[in-house]
Amino acid sequence: MKINVYVTLKPGVLDPQGKAIHHALASLGFAGIDDVRAGRFIELEVANDTSDDDLDAMCRKLLANTVIENYRIERG
Amino acid sequence: MKINVYVTLKPGVLDPQGKAIHHALASLGFAGIDDVRAGRFIELEVANDTSDDDLDAMCRKLLANTVIENYRIERG
Repeated sequence: MKINVYVTLKPGVLDPQGKAIHHALASLGFAGIDDVRAGRFIELEVANDTSDDDLDAMCRKLLANTVIENYRIERG
Repeated sequence: MKINVYVTLKPGVLDPQGKAIHHALASLGFAGIDDVRAGRFIELEVANDTSDDDLDAMCRKLLANTVIENYRIERG
């Protein structure tokens, strides 16, 4: 079973990577960009009987730093 | 206008980050994980008149290394 996990910084948390991308795009001449936020996208191939609780625990224990990040789990 | 960009390694390209996550999850006791692939997830806030060509150019010029990565653009 395919699972997609999206890890993004919580609103208000400084995003230096996003800022760097934003500046780089501007210096390449791309106009009209108001904001850029960078996050992680993790694709998991797991057994079909993997429970939502298991997936949640994987995110809380490893995939996301829940102090500064949010995560979203999407079944593929 | 909100745009989501997903950057993932092309199939067959070695993914050390994914491997590291896979091993870490296993050592935390999570069973039934067959594969892990790590990628990037970039949220762009752009002007409404930003064209598909512009978005494509942003990806090809900066956001993705098209030699080893695929990208997917999703209008938010």
